[in-house]
Amino acid sequence: MTDLGDVASALRQQAIELPSWAFGNSGTRFKVFARAGVPRTPQEKIADAAQVHRYTGIAPSVALHIPWDTVEDYSALAAHARDLGVRVGAINSNVFQDDDYMLGSVTHPDAKVRRKALDHLLACVDIMDATGSTDLKLWFSDGTNYPGQDDIRARQDRLSEALTAVRDRLGEGQRFLLEYKLFEPAFYTTDVPDWGTAYAHCVKLGDKAQVVVDTGHHAPGTNIEFIVAFLMREGKLGGFDFNSRFYADDDLMVGAADPFQLFRIMYEVVRGGGHLPSSGIAFMLDQCHNIEPKIPGQIRSVLNVQEATAKALMVDAGALEAAQLAGDVLGANAVLMDAYNTDVRPFLADLRAGQGLDPDPMAAFARSGYQERIDAERVGGQQAGWGA
Amino acid sequence: MTDLGDVASALRQQAIELPSWAFGNSGTRFKVFARAGVPRTPQEKIADAAQVHRYTGIAPSVALHIPWDTVEDYSALAAHARDLGVRVGAINSNVFQDDDYMLGSVTHPDAKVRRKALDHLLACVDIMDATGSTDLKLWFSDGTNYPGQDDIRARQDRLSEALTAVRDRLGEGQRFLLEYKLFEPAFYTTDVPDWGTAYAHCVKLGDKAQVVVDTGHHAPGTNIEFIVAFLMREGKLGGFDFNSRFYADDDLMVGAADPFQLFRIMYEVVRGGGHLPSSGIAFMLDQCHNIEPKIPGQIRSVLNVQEATAKALMVDAGALEAAQLAGDVLGANAVLMDAYNTDVRPFLADLRAGQGLDPDPMAAFARSGYQERIDAERVGGQQAGWGA
Amino acid sequence: MTDLGDVASALRQQAIELPSWAFGNSGTRFKVFARAGVPRTPQEKIADAAQVHRYTGIAPSVALHIPWDTVEDYSALAAHARDLGVRVGAINSNVFQDDDYMLGSVTHPDAKVRRKALDHLLACVDIMDATGSTDLKLWFSDGTNYPGQDDIRARQDRLSEALTAVRDRLGEGQRFLLEYKLFEPAFYTTDVPDWGTAYAHCVKLGDKAQVVVDTGHHAPGTNIEFIVAFLMREGKLGGFDFNSRFYADDDLMVGAADPFQLFRIMYEVVRGGGHLPSSGIAFMLDQCHNIEPKIPGQIRSVLNVQEATAKALMVDAGALEAAQLAGDVLGANAVLMDAYNTDVRPFLADLRAGQGLDPDPMAAFARSGYQERIDAERVGGQQAGWGA
Amino acid sequence: MTDLGDVASALRQQAIELPSWAFGNSGTRFKVFARAGVPRTPQEKIADAAQVHRYTGIAPSVALHIPWDTVEDYSALAAHARDLGVRVGAINSNVFQDDDYMLGSVTHPDAKVRRKALDHLLACVDIMDATGSTDLKLWFSDGTNYPGQDDIRARQDRLSEALTAVRDRLGEGQRFLLEYKLFEPAFYTTDVPDWGTAYAHCVKLGDKAQVVVDTGHHAPGTNIEFIVAFLMREGKLGGFDFNSRFYADDDLMVGAADPFQLFRIMYEVVRGGGHLPSSGIAFMLDQCHNIEPKIPGQIRSVLNVQEATAKALMVDAGALEAAQLAGDVLGANAVLMDAYNTDVRPFLADLRAGQGLDPDPMAAFARSGYQERIDAERVGGQQAGWGA
Repeated sequence: MTDLGDVASALRQQAIELPSWAFGNSGTRFKVFARAGVPRTPQEKIADAAQVHRYTGIAPSVALHIPWDTVEDYSALAAHARDLGVRVGAINSNVFQDDDYMLGSVTHPDAKVRRKALDHLLACVDIMDATGSTDLKLWFSDGTNYPGQDDIRARQDRLSEALTAVRDRLGEGQRFLLEYKLFEPAFYTTDVPDWGTAYAHCVKLGDKAQVVVDTGHHAPGTNIEFIVAFLMREGKLGGFDFNSRFYADDDLMVGAADPFQLFRIMYEVVRGGGHLPSSGIAFMLDQCHNIEPKIPGQIRSVLNVQEATAKALMVDAGALEAAQLAGDVLGANAVLMDAYNTDVRPFLADLRAGQGLDPDPMAAFARSGYQERIDAERVGGQQAGWGA
Repeated sequence: MTDLGDVASALRQQAIELPSWAFGNSGTRFKVFARAGVPRTPQEKIADAAQVHRYTGIAPSVALHIPWDTVEDYSALAAHARDLGVRVGAINSNVFQDDDYMLGSVTHPDAKVRRKALDHLLACVDIMDATGSTDLKLWFSDGTNYPGQDDIRARQDRLSEALTAVRDRLGEGQRFLLEYKLFEPAFYTTDVPDWGTAYAHCVKLGDKAQVVVDTGHHAPGTNIEFIVAFLMREGKLGGFDFNSRFYADDDLMVGAADPFQLFRIMYEVVRGGGHLPSSGIAFMLDQCHNIEPKIPGQIRSVLNVQEATAKALMVDAGALEAAQLAGDVLGANAVLMDAYNTDVRPFLADLRAGQGLDPDPMAAFARSGYQERIDAERVGGQQAGWGA
Repeated sequence: MTDLGDVASALRQQAIELPSWAFGNSGTRFKVFARAGVPRTPQEKIADAAQVHRYTGIAPSVALHIPWDTVEDYSALAAHARDLGVRVGAINSNVFQDDDYMLGSVTHPDAKVRRKALDHLLACVDIMDATGSTDLKLWFSDGTNYPGQDDIRARQDRLSEALTAVRDRLGEGQRFLLEYKLFEPAFYTTDVPDWGTAYAHCVKLGDKAQVVVDTGHHAPGTNIEFIVAFLMREGKLGGFDFNSRFYADDDLMVGAADPFQLFRIMYEVVRGGGHLPSSGIAFMLDQCHNIEPKIPGQIRSVLNVQEATAKALMVDAGALEAAQLAGDVLGANAVLMDAYNTDVRPFLADLRAGQGLDPDPMAAFARSGYQERIDAERVGGQQAGWGA
Repeated sequence: MTDLGDVASALRQQAIELPSWAFGNSGTRFKVFARAGVPRTPQEKIADAAQVHRYTGIAPSVALHIPWDTVEDYSALAAHARDLGVRVGAINSNVFQDDDYMLGSVTHPDAKVRRKALDHLLACVDIMDATGSTDLKLWFSDGTNYPGQDDIRARQDRLSEALTAVRDRLGEGQRFLLEYKLFEPAFYTTDVPDWGTAYAHCVKLGDKAQVVVDTGHHAPGTNIEFIVAFLMREGKLGGFDFNSRFYADDDLMVGAADPFQLFRIMYEVVRGGGHLPSSGIAFMLDQCHNIEPKIPGQIRSVLNVQEATAKALMVDAGALEAAQLAGDVLGANAVLMDAYNTDVRPFLADLRAGQGLDPDPMAAFARSGYQERIDAERVGGQQAGWGA
């Protein structure tokens, strides 16, 4: 039997990291729809993120994206975050939005471009030093669009060289998280297309190199929880970029497209002890609220992860193992499904009440008047988005 | 045996339509890379398109996209095209780039937005009248991102209403081409997601309504040549938007990702007599040259379609049918593959020479100095792209 | 607000049809694992199916598969079913397991094979007459493995001819349900690969021709509930073959792979009024219990459909429509998710108790001793499977 | 410029391994179609394989599958092969067709079953010793069908244990080739689902452990040539199981579905020097001729690989590298496509003539009368297939 006190205890320790860019405008190549109240500055993004933490209690950090969140004084930005009750999380590098990067960044055929890209990555480590961030997120859009365009193998050599240089620059308690992605924006090859590629590089580079799983970056049919379980067994799962998808890298709210998949992923996390902060696994959101309001979209997403985690924690581990070892296919499946089919919302409402939070974060935020205030106040200036 | 004179005769009649927007900048949601020499105006786009026709001899028309190609005087634009040796082709409507369209255009829950979208479609027919264009291309980005967001069925009702109104507005010799697409920018439902949906609406609306097949708009594994053959059998194939893909709607150069698929598609076209202008099937390109130069990218694409068509025409139809009826699996396949494996480039070079064209269009354009000229001349102004 | 009395009333009318072949052995091309207690005869299959109805109360009919369920006297078989408290449902034809059908059945290039296949289909209608069955299920494995192997278009002509002949043979109150499938066993083209193809044929053939949606027969990423909504809007949804999949046509228990998808499908069914028997939509299971026990596998599947239906019925239709019309993306999604996240199991247990059924059908069957009895009794003879 | 003498020299060294089981009957779960002339014994399979070598000159070895090819005396079987001009290639183990393996073999929850499976693998090494085979092919169908059915992580522990034991048993000059597969026959998890999993195990186990790439075992959209290039760079590509697919693991003739993909794969092989025998990469066919005649099907497949290799060898490496380093996207692509578009069949016909072979292997075999002879002689007995 599952001990609900243990479940509550684990849930109270849960921490989900918010991406600063989720509060800015986003869209598709067809159109970015602007929305009232959208932040103009990194400070405003952090303020919005702090609202999510205020109502959920489990979103204490905010990932930055450089250069979208470039500021003069990063220590001041970190202090600003602390003042609002949150902290700066992972630093996300960006080597895909400069004209120089059209044919790649760290894997570009031209050494000058590679150097420029590497310098940016190293500068991101400087920001880690300044903000106290421990994680450097590396996503490379590098790849090719046409067969023959560049040499697949040479690009791996270049990638390896860059990763080694970054690893060597990282200080004590710092690490990089290497993200893989099947495709987009590259449409023929991507230089880190799958977990195997990320893993192979990270194994060679040691403990400061870990893999991050973005739940929207796989080929159709990929069993993500298998990858999660495998990487955890290898000690190489650094974290998640959570979002959900029906088709490609749709970047919808996590849990919106396939809540059962999210539950299965969280079950493997719990199975491997990864849900506790001591595991070092970073649970980050990375999604786009193209058509829904940003702050409520983030709250909803945090709640979706929380609900999936609660269900995963409620799996009767003893009964499950017994059925598995007995080869009882339907019985084992039933143990898992029993937890999934449980409505954990009342339990979570009680948990929040016990922590002095409103039992219903969505409603509480809606009532707060914050959205109306920023809609009114944030007039003029340049709204934040992917491009700025 | 295939009569090569017949092949040449058919190829001389081939006509491929170029999209004006292929000459502007394009990209992904991550970045649009600017390029020297890119047109600033519809007139410049048409001039570039005329270059493609000049060197290939089989690209005599240019599709316009409204409002990207909005001008004061469409008759003058049509005359400009004629002066350059080409003509205005299909009018592509755009009801996806206005803030009003965030939740849909003709299927939007708000009647005012639907009216606005419909008015745009009708205005496009006015442009057809002014330019002599016979084809209205309808692509709706309409759909939803989240389950429950809107009513699937009601949206079909609204779609049907709009299509009916457009059909009723079309004059003699005019038609609309309804495009379907699996996803993007909508990530849960799309209101015209597949050929079946487009077909069902078009069947009800009669001869002025036809389906257009964009080769990049299908689910993985979809057999596109089957759809082509089926729609031709039903008399409902209005045309193609050609491009190619490895993953999603990558919009790469047609024939670049899977040249064998392009051949199989063209074989079904030939099989049904669709390759001759009398068929009324419009062979349009619709692709993005995100990282390659635009005009050469279009020339390469036109040549790819031409080569696939030549191979398809070279299939020994009699031998194929005999093997098929005999149930000779390997024999029938071999007849098809024999044509595919033929190197048709020398044949096409001769064909061009016979038409007074340079045998090598890519080289001829490169030598012409046109690119260097526009790179130098087109300085200042706003480069054309998807947004303008 | 949803009226739970209405929900209960609708659920009491629900009827799910079981496939006789689910009680026989099944497997993959690699291995069919035999299991104790498996039926040797159609009579034994029906007896097992009757157990599922006994404990769930909503599985009153059994589909037959010819020739797997060939008997001398079909009226006697129908009487046998009635004696056990169930009735004969759809007749499933089989034109894929004879050596003659290697290159097709009704679309075979050889007219003799086509005639043989059609004769089988007509013989199935005779069985409908004898058993009182109203539905003829048509699934054609017809297709090709290699490009060029046969003529795509000619095969459609042959298909059309066969479907017309079957339609003409059907009596009053009889219909055929045409099934589509993306691939397998044909690996290049399939003659009815998607709903559009099935729909196009059925539209021409009138009211006796309807489309059946097998939930495992789509390309990756296909939005099945869209198809369901569309076909219902057109009056062309004849029924479902329920099962679930992670990859291809896995034929797992319905609701096992993506319970949220099943809920969304059932929501569209309810939205269109299709859940009531008067709709004429047949809710059939078609799945393989390769590694799990058959009868419990069927009970679990029936319960999964029932739970999804209950949740779909609990959607607050008024609140949903209001949010949709207001363009409230998160609000509308939340209304749907609220129903999905509800644990309907206690409600269904009460419903069963009120009908004199055991609240827990799985446990009740396990306690009944039936499985042990058939394991002991069904020794010798030829176990039923796909081949017999 | 490519030196055609070098191309010819490389092609003369090419060696492709045939699978004994390709000469037996195969099919899908729906039906295995029997065919006249099919071998009844391993000896007859080898005789048929020798025909393929006789006419192509590049298929000198035959892979065995145990227990399908179980014989009393393996040395005698090896001698039989030598007498026919071929040799025994890889030994393929089979731990998926015994009732004990329903829930797994080396990853089964029950230690007794794991022991049995391991014993089989070790027995296969004995056969390697007896036949002189150097390669043990390991494919595990192990996996689960339902979430919760078994513990993903524990299964990896069991897998690791078995692989270690096999590695320890291998002698000098022997190795195992670990095959991965996305799905089928397992439909939820597969224990070795992708190259990353196979690679991670092989890296730990050292030089005797290598990865084999079956071209039909990937998720839709996977870039196989990337994997090939990556594994070669890591020294971990042990070989190929060639076949082709449009959908899933269709096991069609290699090169039949996407000849351009085969070319791209062979280009990466050539790029890494893998095409020469000294590379140690095994080029094996693994496909099913469900509807086409077996021996011609194998000849066609061997020729398809040969043609793709010839084209890959004809790529102008210098021109390609120059264009790549210059960032000339279209130019680099054109170099590759120029080779692909070349019709290499005349070149290969000359090559064969120079080796004393018939220039047209398909026609030569057809004329030989061999098929008619075996059709007449092989009457009675049990035709070979997957089950025996």
